[in-house]
Amino acid sequence: MKKIHEECGVFGIVTLSPEPLAHTVYCGLFALQHRGQEGAGITVNDDGVFTTHKDLGLVDHVFTPQVLAGFPHGTMAIGHTRYGTTGGNQRRNCQPMEVNHQKGKMSLVHNGNLSNAGKLRSVLEQRGAIFHTTSDTEIIAYIITQARLQTDSIEDAVRLAVPQLEGAFSLIVMSAQKMIAVRDPNGFRPLCIGTLHDGGFVLASESCALTAVGAEFLRDVEPGEMIVLTNDGKMHSDKRFTKTAPKRSCVFEYIYFARPDSVIDGVSVHAARKKAGRLLAQTHPVEADVVIGVPDSGLDAALGYAEESGIQYGIGLIKNKYIGRTFIAPSQNERVSSVRLKLSPIRETVEGRRIVLIDDSIVRGTTSRRIVSLLRDAGAKEIHMRISSPPFLHPCYYGTDIDSEDNLIASHHTPEEIAKIIGADSVGFLPLETLPQLADTDEICTACFSGDYPTAVDRDESKDRFERKIHG
Amino acid sequence: MKKIHEECGVFGIVTLSPEPLAHTVYCGLFALQHRGQEGAGITVNDDGVFTTHKDLGLVDHVFTPQVLAGFPHGTMAIGHTRYGTTGGNQRRNCQPMEVNHQKGKMSLVHNGNLSNAGKLRSVLEQRGAIFHTTSDTEIIAYIITQARLQTDSIEDAVRLAVPQLEGAFSLIVMSAQKMIAVRDPNGFRPLCIGTLHDGGFVLASESCALTAVGAEFLRDVEPGEMIVLTNDGKMHSDKRFTKTAPKRSCVFEYIYFARPDSVIDGVSVHAARKKAGRLLAQTHPVEADVVIGVPDSGLDAALGYAEESGIQYGIGLIKNKYIGRTFIAPSQNERVSSVRLKLSPIRETVEGRRIVLIDDSIVRGTTSRRIVSLLRDAGAKEIHMRISSPPFLHPCYYGTDIDSEDNLIASHHTPEEIAKIIGADSVGFLPLETLPQLADTDEICTACFSGDYPTAVDRDESKDRFERKIHG
Amino acid sequence: MKKIHEECGVFGIVTLSPEPLAHTVYCGLFALQHRGQEGAGITVNDDGVFTTHKDLGLVDHVFTPQVLAGFPHGTMAIGHTRYGTTGGNQRRNCQPMEVNHQKGKMSLVHNGNLSNAGKLRSVLEQRGAIFHTTSDTEIIAYIITQARLQTDSIEDAVRLAVPQLEGAFSLIVMSAQKMIAVRDPNGFRPLCIGTLHDGGFVLASESCALTAVGAEFLRDVEPGEMIVLTNDGKMHSDKRFTKTAPKRSCVFEYIYFARPDSVIDGVSVHAARKKAGRLLAQTHPVEADVVIGVPDSGLDAALGYAEESGIQYGIGLIKNKYIGRTFIAPSQNERVSSVRLKLSPIRETVEGRRIVLIDDSIVRGTTSRRIVSLLRDAGAKEIHMRISSPPFLHPCYYGTDIDSEDNLIASHHTPEEIAKIIGADSVGFLPLETLPQLADTDEICTACFSGDYPTAVDRDESKDRFERKIHG
Amino acid sequence: MKKIHEECGVFGIVTLSPEPLAHTVYCGLFALQHRGQEGAGITVNDDGVFTTHKDLGLVDHVFTPQVLAGFPHGTMAIGHTRYGTTGGNQRRNCQPMEVNHQKGKMSLVHNGNLSNAGKLRSVLEQRGAIFHTTSDTEIIAYIITQARLQTDSIEDAVRLAVPQLEGAFSLIVMSAQKMIAVRDPNGFRPLCIGTLHDGGFVLASESCALTAVGAEFLRDVEPGEMIVLTNDGKMHSDKRFTKTAPKRSCVFEYIYFARPDSVIDGVSVHAARKKAGRLLAQTHPVEADVVIGVPDSGLDAALGYAEESGIQYGIGLIKNKYIGRTFIAPSQNERVSSVRLKLSPIRETVEGRRIVLIDDSIVRGTTSRRIVSLLRDAGAKEIHMRISSPPFLHPCYYGTDIDSEDNLIASHHTPEEIAKIIGADSVGFLPLETLPQLADTDEICTACFSGDYPTAVDRDESKDRFERKIHG
Repeated sequence: MKKIHEECGVFGIVTLSPEPLAHTVYCGLFALQHRGQEGAGITVNDDGVFTTHKDLGLVDHVFTPQVLAGFPHGTMAIGHTRYGTTGGNQRRNCQPMEVNHQKGKMSLVHNGNLSNAGKLRSVLEQRGAIFHTTSDTEIIAYIITQARLQTDSIEDAVRLAVPQLEGAFSLIVMSAQKMIAVRDPNGFRPLCIGTLHDGGFVLASESCALTAVGAEFLRDVEPGEMIVLTNDGKMHSDKRFTKTAPKRSCVFEYIYFARPDSVIDGVSVHAARKKAGRLLAQTHPVEADVVIGVPDSGLDAALGYAEESGIQYGIGLIKNKYIGRTFIAPSQNERVSSVRLKLSPIRETVEGRRIVLIDDSIVRGTTSRRIVSLLRDAGAKEIHMRISSPPFLHPCYYGTDIDSEDNLIASHHTPEEIAKIIGADSVGFLPLETLPQLADTDEICTACFSGDYPTAVDRDESKDRFERKIHG
Repeated sequence: MKKIHEECGVFGIVTLSPEPLAHTVYCGLFALQHRGQEGAGITVNDDGVFTTHKDLGLVDHVFTPQVLAGFPHGTMAIGHTRYGTTGGNQRRNCQPMEVNHQKGKMSLVHNGNLSNAGKLRSVLEQRGAIFHTTSDTEIIAYIITQARLQTDSIEDAVRLAVPQLEGAFSLIVMSAQKMIAVRDPNGFRPLCIGTLHDGGFVLASESCALTAVGAEFLRDVEPGEMIVLTNDGKMHSDKRFTKTAPKRSCVFEYIYFARPDSVIDGVSVHAARKKAGRLLAQTHPVEADVVIGVPDSGLDAALGYAEESGIQYGIGLIKNKYIGRTFIAPSQNERVSSVRLKLSPIRETVEGRRIVLIDDSIVRGTTSRRIVSLLRDAGAKEIHMRISSPPFLHPCYYGTDIDSEDNLIASHHTPEEIAKIIGADSVGFLPLETLPQLADTDEICTACFSGDYPTAVDRDESKDRFERKIHG
Repeated sequence: MKKIHEECGVFGIVTLSPEPLAHTVYCGLFALQHRGQEGAGITVNDDGVFTTHKDLGLVDHVFTPQVLAGFPHGTMAIGHTRYGTTGGNQRRNCQPMEVNHQKGKMSLVHNGNLSNAGKLRSVLEQRGAIFHTTSDTEIIAYIITQARLQTDSIEDAVRLAVPQLEGAFSLIVMSAQKMIAVRDPNGFRPLCIGTLHDGGFVLASESCALTAVGAEFLRDVEPGEMIVLTNDGKMHSDKRFTKTAPKRSCVFEYIYFARPDSVIDGVSVHAARKKAGRLLAQTHPVEADVVIGVPDSGLDAALGYAEESGIQYGIGLIKNKYIGRTFIAPSQNERVSSVRLKLSPIRETVEGRRIVLIDDSIVRGTTSRRIVSLLRDAGAKEIHMRISSPPFLHPCYYGTDIDSEDNLIASHHTPEEIAKIIGADSVGFLPLETLPQLADTDEICTACFSGDYPTAVDRDESKDRFERKIHG
Repeated sequence: MKKIHEECGVFGIVTLSPEPLAHTVYCGLFALQHRGQEGAGITVNDDGVFTTHKDLGLVDHVFTPQVLAGFPHGTMAIGHTRYGTTGGNQRRNCQPMEVNHQKGKMSLVHNGNLSNAGKLRSVLEQRGAIFHTTSDTEIIAYIITQARLQTDSIEDAVRLAVPQLEGAFSLIVMSAQKMIAVRDPNGFRPLCIGTLHDGGFVLASESCALTAVGAEFLRDVEPGEMIVLTNDGKMHSDKRFTKTAPKRSCVFEYIYFARPDSVIDGVSVHAARKKAGRLLAQTHPVEADVVIGVPDSGLDAALGYAEESGIQYGIGLIKNKYIGRTFIAPSQNERVSSVRLKLSPIRETVEGRRIVLIDDSIVRGTTSRRIVSLLRDAGAKEIHMRISSPPFLHPCYYGTDIDSEDNLIASHHTPEEIAKIIGADSVGFLPLETLPQLADTDEICTACFSGDYPTAVDRDESKDRFERKIHG
């Protein structure tokens, strides 16, 4: 039902001696599953011999015990969970992308979106390159490979390549001897590093994946930073190798994408969501009997709203925990909507009450209308919907797949009109100007709400990307 | 990790004209998935022609769109989700059990456990019966079939058969023309009935399945009641056909098994759990900073404890929503426990705080110890565990698969000792005498906590059952 | 395309000490695959503990290396390949049928068809039996189980049970300690026994399965004989335990069912087929340039015809060796018939030649018409079809699934008419009176050709069976 | 068991109006299945939109009815069956290889082996190319793409690219508007063209695939010829675009690879094999009672030997028709060799007889030894093995995967020694100098037998290829 998607999760690990690393990467990817549910992959580096397995599907479908057992032990490995925006959902677009070249092996994973992908691809094709995938990752692989022709050092090749990339990228490149992590100069997408007790390192899109594999959070990779890890337990940082740009981390990571137990750029996602709830209570107060959240991402904000307003917090909607990515509501059944199969109201909490209902966003309004209707059927007296983000109004060029502007309900309607459309008594959005309070900083990207893009953006580029989709 | 299991969920539907009923049953079973995750099955009755499909696996694995499309439309259908106690987890034990006999077709589903299964089976074998399964359902099918030899009425056959059964059973029998529901005289397991807008009926183990298919809750089937439904929209009830017995509904349905949005025998499961939390706050108060629940079943009680105690409610543990029934933590990984993959602490909520941690039960203590350790690692200052049930001390003969007494931590240890074992600062269990307050009645079965069995119980029977398991 | 099917293959093995018997049974079943391609199963007896696996599919699909590895070693095992006439092609009808009963375990496999199945089932149901399958094997299991109530000896139970069975049956029954083989008094279906070098025994429907597992052919089990095998290497025979009847082995086993490398009741199948070719050459001579057989079952007879007539033998049709049981010609393709995908002419052999084309039978004539057309397209000048069996005119009650009389081309047409319909220059069938020469004996059943049934046959029984098919 | 493999089968079709072409390609590939059993793929061109599906497995496993139904109709399509020599058996190496490039789409399939692959790849990598596969096809795709940068015509691009390729290649390239077929100047691998009744064209490795889809054989594509097909039913030929070279078609296509119903370069494969049998009878006569062939590829030569020698032709070995590519003899079974499961002797033919046994080749001798042993066990009195090819002595650089010289029995042993090793009474090979008689021409490649390579061959190239295998 949700129409907003993140592009991916990345993971890397370096140890001092060989281990069954595929199992560890599996655990890390499992913790990053929410960032991409359409494909998964792992490359293990066993003393320069690379073994890659990747496929469409959830992490635990792709990596069965048999598949995991087929990986060798190794001292470095990377992994990826994929949500595919460009080029559809095809097996060949899964990552890591392994490159065998006479200058040496390389495998890479990427979270983000290049805003100059079309131009880069066009130039490469004009030089005779052929592309097997429609993903940005193959473009990055080419750019790095061409840089390698000029240098024997993989680090120098990355140094030469990265300044050519524009947009959002959190990247991990593994060669036979090194693991290199790079975050784009604006720092759109998160990337952090942790340490293992025995001296190794872990890289991950979110800190929850460090926790999952028993690593200790060290720090975020900084925007515009390159980190180089080796098997002797050394870590080098280079912050001056590419252009500088103002930090602009994606605020929607806090609102929806990231897991509440992650800490991004020093701010707890759970705390940011509770803060959003508090801000909603301050800016859109209402008289009511109970505050309930739409599970799972509305629960933290609901608790914040309840605490700030003094209205009782309640558990009013249950999510069927067997709803998986593969769940398809059987189409022939006229009795049942898919919202009804996913969410169920607790009448005890709802009946005869005035309700504040907290959700993270409204895209088209269809889901919200169905949830309001479920609660009305369960006897709710009033329903005041509060959204823990501002209205979506603009496309994102940095890795979020927002529905087209035509479909966005807030493009065409005021909150009052939206309330009428979805059947709520009132609707209130988080004010745009409060967003810096969520992340404790104004170094955030709010482009999808404000239209204020941190980088030059070429709308034709976007069109070109769309056309590639068509061929792809 | 959980060692307490329910035996099954049952579902039935009767309509006035043919519909794609398999799709509706699918939705109902999906809502009852928590009652049995090892197998699923559906029989559709298309004017006397029965089509059955059943297999091991979750509802949405067994019933793919292709499989659902292969069912004919019909006017009656039944379904089942299976958790297998006896006879292991074998395909042949899945339900519904379809019987083709010269006296007419029959398909049946069952939730419960016969306490005289061994004796009944032995007598049947002495008469030459052969058994293909090790489930109680085949015994019931035989008993009804033998009764049918004496009467042309399926109702009368059920009337003759049911008094021979002892123990817990919520049963739905479908013949070519009728659907018959029976709940055992003690009413151990739940069973309720709802109505469809167009005049049909729905039967289900829990009311959440009525909601899922758009039916309106009518009432619970009463202990010792037989309900007969036909396609002309008529419903007959017979409450005097079997022996009477005191009502003893299973209190653990409220504490753990049932979904919080279900209402069983007039009492909301969510309300019962919040009440358990309130009672824990009254009986085991403590000074603390925040109350957190172990997801999912500890959350309602945590909210009750917070409200009663005035201590702030917090979200302190996140459950990975991709953990499915099929999830297997990769064994070779020494870094990671499966608790760590399933649950993750929110440091923001936990760090430096005194915590009341609410869970529904402690079986062996292993999981609790790991959760306490997760919270300590995240900086918890004190951890006071409160359990929303009394200690498990006795076996259940009515359909709950409790670990053997030797493994139950409360058999050998006081709460103080348990606190030490699991690393908590204190542990408090819900007092046995408060259980009637949860269900607003003392007509409950508390045998697994109290040893007070509502029916005569033969421990050798149980032993015999065990041995059948060995051959089976 | 072929409309004539055999009902099954059976296999049993007894060794002196434990072995990985599932692997041996697999090899035996693989050699018997041609007798049943819809299901397969194995039971291994490991000192009284039975492990059974069975499913729909070919032997090598059902028994993957993983499945085989899951079987324990044992000293006895039985197996089955299934072709399903009655009750359709359902998983529950697969064999072996394992029965767990207080009088002891039993597992059984069966090839044949009971001509009194309907009556036996009806009587059993009237005593309260319920049936899970629609196969005759479950009826036999019941009859033996009821006999076991009267005796502690499994042999005596079989002795009591078998005289109640009518029709065709080659049966292997395995108990915890014994393996018992029985062939019906008429000996309709084959069954033979071989010895292992180390003192064990092997039972199989055809001698080719003995060869496949390295056993040495000992002799055929005689009609009306019961053989009892034990793990001490002893073999007992009892030939007087049931009624006597004239031997009537199925002649169509020689013509089509059995493998050419098998020897049945002392006669080589290959030799019988060559003989059929010679007899055709004598009875239906023709001037021609080359004799070709329709692969695979027409090749032996073609060679016989060539040798007898002096006309050159040729290879004129190639069968695509990747055509499997699961092959489905893609339906949307208008260019291609499935005959064209399966068979391809060799123009070199065919072009400009007068051809004698040998096939084993004509059922509806559709396939023959397409083969003739293939050869015409490849330039054949004349095509004289010779069929190595008489025309099919009557139903079989002994285990062969012949198309209904309405569909049999020979019911309505003379050979001359058939030639016209299929586009051949002439058609000749093997004369009925020559059949005894094939098998070197007149103790054969020719009922499907002659209507001369060796036992009383109740056409209503057959009708009843058909109706059971409808419910089943 | 067989150690000699062909590299692939290719297929292409062009029609005048849209059709469900995937179904037709499926049928064509099914007929070419013997040329490659490890992978299969199809690209359908629907007015410039390409849809490709490819995977490891047999044609009917990869192309299920669901997969076929997912293809659009189209007016051009190509397909491939793969046997993988270089780079192992990986999904990414399957064909067709689809290339999306700003100069236009292209999809290509290839049968053969470039003898300068290593050099070409190295040069491309030095220009910055990255390779996803280890197949020659990706190299060809790059070379053509780089040529496209210099011209807008796909034909001209192919004209520029092909002269850079050395070795064996039968290639089909499909662009949005055209289908281009090229056969290398030596004509190592076969390629032919046929016409459809309605004006379209079909290209295929062997004529049997034309027959399978109802096309009429037109002619072979000539060595060094480029054919261009368009949807208006036009066909252009260009025979002067690349260097000329002596024609050298692979003689082993006749002896073993191709199907007996195919006609290659004007010579029937069946006829060539019979001729080989006749030549063997002339050059290695023997007194014997019966001539039998090892199925399937030895049968034609056996018939030729029998006809020439006057010794009776017999059917002496039966191949189990359920042996598929996926068949694995269960390893734990000590009783059974895999030869015994695949081949079974007919005692009737063999017992007490002096046998001439015809097979197409001897590689290591292991299989021959087991077949001889099977026949001895069945009572053969003498066994004279006759091989319808000369001894293998040299590696092939043109697409045949011959075992390494160390393993070739004929490298180290005389025919007399080989007879002793395999247990035969005598062994005779087809004399090298008779090979031209098989193909009715001396324009054949006999390098694997004679060491006489038609092109310059760099043994280091081969070594380089081997090393790529190691990284791949």
